[in-house]
Amino acid sequence: MLGRITLQRCSTTLATFVRCCPSSAQTNSFTYRTHTCGELRRHHAGEKVTVCGWVEFNRLNRFVVIRDAYGHVQAFVPDGQESISAAVKNITYESVVKVTGTVTERADKHKNPKMVTGDVQVDIDSFEVVNTAPATLPVSLRKETEVSSDSALRLKYRYLDLRKPQMQQILRFRANLVHKMRRYLTEEASFVEVETPTLFRRTPGGAAEFVVPAGKPNIGRFYSLPQSPQQFKQLLMVGGLDRYFQVARCYRDEGSKLDRQPEFTQVDLELSFTNQEGVIALIEQLVCQSWPDEMAELRPSAPFERMTYADAMRLYGVDKPDLRVNWQIEDISASLSSLKKESNDDWCARVIVAKGAAKSLSSKWRKEAKRLIGMNKFAQPFAVCTLKEDPLFKAALSNQDFLREKLNLQDEDAAVICWGTPADVQKTLGQLRTLLIEATGVRNQKKMVFLWVVDFPLFDREEDDRLVSAHHPFTAPAPGQERLLFDGNPEEITAQHYDLVLNGVEVGGGSIRIHDAATQRHVLKNILREDSTELEHLLEALSLGAPPHGGFAVGLDRYVALLFGRGDSSVPIRDVIAFPKSKEGHDVMCAAPTAPTDEQLVRYGIRLIES
Amino acid sequence: MLGRITLQRCSTTLATFVRCCPSSAQTNSFTYRTHTCGELRRHHAGEKVTVCGWVEFNRLNRFVVIRDAYGHVQAFVPDGQESISAAVKNITYESVVKVTGTVTERADKHKNPKMVTGDVQVDIDSFEVVNTAPATLPVSLRKETEVSSDSALRLKYRYLDLRKPQMQQILRFRANLVHKMRRYLTEEASFVEVETPTLFRRTPGGAAEFVVPAGKPNIGRFYSLPQSPQQFKQLLMVGGLDRYFQVARCYRDEGSKLDRQPEFTQVDLELSFTNQEGVIALIEQLVCQSWPDEMAELRPSAPFERMTYADAMRLYGVDKPDLRVNWQIEDISASLSSLKKESNDDWCARVIVAKGAAKSLSSKWRKEAKRLIGMNKFAQPFAVCTLKEDPLFKAALSNQDFLREKLNLQDEDAAVICWGTPADVQKTLGQLRTLLIEATGVRNQKKMVFLWVVDFPLFDREEDDRLVSAHHPFTAPAPGQERLLFDGNPEEITAQHYDLVLNGVEVGGGSIRIHDAATQRHVLKNILREDSTELEHLLEALSLGAPPHGGFAVGLDRYVALLFGRGDSSVPIRDVIAFPKSKEGHDVMCAAPTAPTDEQLVRYGIRLIES
Repeated sequence: MLGRITLQRCSTTLATFVRCCPSSAQTNSFTYRTHTCGELRRHHAGEKVTVCGWVEFNRLNRFVVIRDAYGHVQAFVPDGQESISAAVKNITYESVVKVTGTVTERADKHKNPKMVTGDVQVDIDSFEVVNTAPATLPVSLRKETEVSSDSALRLKYRYLDLRKPQMQQILRFRANLVHKMRRYLTEEASFVEVETPTLFRRTPGGAAEFVVPAGKPNIGRFYSLPQSPQQFKQLLMVGGLDRYFQVARCYRDEGSKLDRQPEFTQVDLELSFTNQEGVIALIEQLVCQSWPDEMAELRPSAPFERMTYADAMRLYGVDKPDLRVNWQIEDISASLSSLKKESNDDWCARVIVAKGAAKSLSSKWRKEAKRLIGMNKFAQPFAVCTLKEDPLFKAALSNQDFLREKLNLQDEDAAVICWGTPADVQKTLGQLRTLLIEATGVRNQKKMVFLWVVDFPLFDREEDDRLVSAHHPFTAPAPGQERLLFDGNPEEITAQHYDLVLNGVEVGGGSIRIHDAATQRHVLKNILREDSTELEHLLEALSLGAPPHGGFAVGLDRYVALLFGRGDSSVPIRDVIAFPKSKEGHDVMCAAPTAPTDEQLVRYGIRLIES
Repeated sequence: MLGRITLQRCSTTLATFVRCCPSSAQTNSFTYRTHTCGELRRHHAGEKVTVCGWVEFNRLNRFVVIRDAYGHVQAFVPDGQESISAAVKNITYESVVKVTGTVTERADKHKNPKMVTGDVQVDIDSFEVVNTAPATLPVSLRKETEVSSDSALRLKYRYLDLRKPQMQQILRFRANLVHKMRRYLTEEASFVEVETPTLFRRTPGGAAEFVVPAGKPNIGRFYSLPQSPQQFKQLLMVGGLDRYFQVARCYRDEGSKLDRQPEFTQVDLELSFTNQEGVIALIEQLVCQSWPDEMAELRPSAPFERMTYADAMRLYGVDKPDLRVNWQIEDISASLSSLKKESNDDWCARVIVAKGAAKSLSSKWRKEAKRLIGMNKFAQPFAVCTLKEDPLFKAALSNQDFLREKLNLQDEDAAVICWGTPADVQKTLGQLRTLLIEATGVRNQKKMVFLWVVDFPLFDREEDDRLVSAHHPFTAPAPGQERLLFDGNPEEITAQHYDLVLNGVEVGGGSIRIHDAATQRHVLKNILREDSTELEHLLEALSLGAPPHGGFAVGLDRYVALLFGRGDSSVPIRDVIAFPKSKEGHDVMCAAPTAPTDEQLVRYGIRLIES
């Protein structure tokens, strides 16, 4: 029998929660340990304690380091304890033990300042091996301190990786962040969390959706897993719910893409009787109020900076500029017209002056940049110049005066110059700017720069001349531009869509929705030429008293990864998910997906097409 | 343009949250209303306000009642406001309006005490019709005050049903309950919420699981939607996470069953280094600490009552007895041996004396009880007797002395007597007891009686003589009984499983799990004769240092329905779900599931079997 349970009722105030520092009583309640391994200190000396955990280290069969989710502590085999000695002698690393003993302060020379519990040890009275691990684990927990889950082997033994302090930290970081978001939305902003279905109907357009064949009595018909609760949240607004949110599982079948998961999580919300300013202000509060306390020094303050889509493209060449540096794109067509080969009016030369970047741009970086840019459809010729090294421009320009005088380049700066078709030059420079930022030390600066990008176009024109929604077909035009849907050029319409960008990464987006059924039908039918059959339920709902409404969705996995990386995108999304899929969509740990059984195929009335 | 946004930061303390009373500033923040319809009172008189909502009523084209999620208020068209008059004249019910005006106190004779805002009205300055509803709605919002979502039409227009106060109340009640559970688990018990995958692998045994055909590069292989996060939560324990919970979506393909949903929600949790007492104490705290304040008078106090499975079956004939009444099964075989027709040793007669039930047992009820019991495989003959009416026993017994003297029956009591094979008599009486409780006024008593049922058998023997897990194959035997798995009679083993019963309904269950790989393999292979291939990942995980662990899952939908019904099971599960499926598994609103497109079939490499 496993001993008595410590049951302690503790009252918590918001203040103690916000410190993210659970008390010992909380963490040990309902268990048969008295303390976690990480909490023992000098003031516990003399206390009889029980700790449980994994054997991390065994020195001389007398000193056993035990680890749990909260830290490490050393247990000591006292003299003359034959049976304990024998047990310790045979113990394998990562075996699970339950140790009871007395906390004693170590002699000064034996204190270990590297260990937070290093002033003490537990003199063992009872040493129970609860579960024995094999002598060798399939994945070592000791060699790497960093989590690296690239290999299939690590994904297969994900639960071993989860024992590492960093993974433990990430899961707790994520849980705390989401809990603070929930507290803000529920308690301070009166939102109601509503769960919406995931066995849904196919949605036209957008990413491919996973299907779920229905069983009896619906054989031959399929559900679809939703890409987002978009339609349901709009229907909740029609239902008068007013202020909705959900931490929602979403599904997208995107095949093999690095750092994309087939299932992912959004913090999804919607409210009625609001407008763009309202949603933006709400999200700013959500971000600031849920900010992790352990990174208080990076907490942003509202309002965040804003930029129009047009300015973002003009100044940064991307719709999600990284403003940790202020390097902007400038036009230098007049100065570099000598590079213009043919008489093509649609030509320009533009530059980004990257202050202080010269030393970071190794020839290896230059080569890699050439290669990456060369892979793009839109790639235009470009040159990376510094005052010391300017091979290309020696030919094009008589001397360095251009760089020095026109661009005000200093020895430590670099200029990236690109020329060709303006739209493609912008995109090329946008991508080069990202590569420049990656090459320089910016990613280590621990900066968090939030930015709203607004005034997106409502529609884009595809290469086949079709108009498509820049975001989704439910987005409303800017106030005053509704008429342009019917009697203007749709391409000139600005959308009430807003993206939230953090350090060059889109962490969320939202819009004010069309709440008028006739307008929504017109957009689907006459502008997008979509088959509206799949959306008749939504169109009918809009016709039965839909309030104006708008909302937002935070891409939670990416946001957590960025935050945990202190603004840097080096933490892959799969590291902030407890059980991620591989880039091939496999759950390597439990070997899913698997071949269906005949029974399953019969039950769902399907068969496989032989390939 | 829709006006300025009210942005107010409000600080909330736990105390104000617990009162579930969001402030006006919170509810109106980020919108262009100044007040909700429900909050205006006399002290607002003289204030200029903007309210938004649905037109609920229009009297004489001068008095317009506007409704939002928070209540109703009357708006008044002042004299001489021609354009407002015209707009009001044309307004249809359920149209959405935005009204700006001045709050005025009504003359005493015009005050409406039935309306919480009935002391005031809003004298309209501006009346904007934001969206026009048709003159007739497909489902009336006015006729029924009760929510009744039986008909397909109501499910189709679910968003109209959601506008009703009761549905609004249910969704908020549910959200508040879950939020309090999260706060308790996170802040007071140090649990970490972790999201686990729903694109999973098939699990052997149990209910049928929905399948999700995988796309490229996995065509021909299927994911399964999990029945619960059972395996993942055990793997988290192996991963050292220690204290996990999740409000988890679960899936079961059960075909058409009344009041069962193909997707449902569990509050799922697991912790390491615990035992049965620990988990039971935790769940008691969870229930008490998250108890809705609006029903404080029904709050249970820990510890809850406990009963063994054997006693539950013996005294109540069910494994989830409803203890709102103390009617127990008693043996009266000796007194009624005259009913025993053949020389069958395996015979008994038993009775439930239902105190005070006589008046509730109409002949209609008796007929219905006969019909329902008759439908069971296990049905045994039974008789419902009162002192006044005892037709059967007039023949069997000489007079009423038996009822009066042996059973101590009073005029107002009823006795239900059943005879035959003991196990079947128990089950029949168990079911009759439930019918008796339904027939009497017990369901209106607003009582909440929690009960732990413990000491279940670990295995049941099927009719084909196979042993199956009484709950699931991961359940551990009672402490000290582990050896019986190997060298005893498995049917005699008690499980460390515990069910939480509320008023005769199972609202959750849990167990201590097997944490030893060899034992788990033995149970799967040698006792259950299951193919353990599908569980190799779990078996391997158990072998690599698994801590002892156990947990629980609350069936959230059922629990919310019971709580919202104040202990009575009259609120169907589908009413506590925003967008439920019909009993045929249809999302009637958006018409899912649907026939797949050819594109979908090709994408997933499947075809339909012609039926």
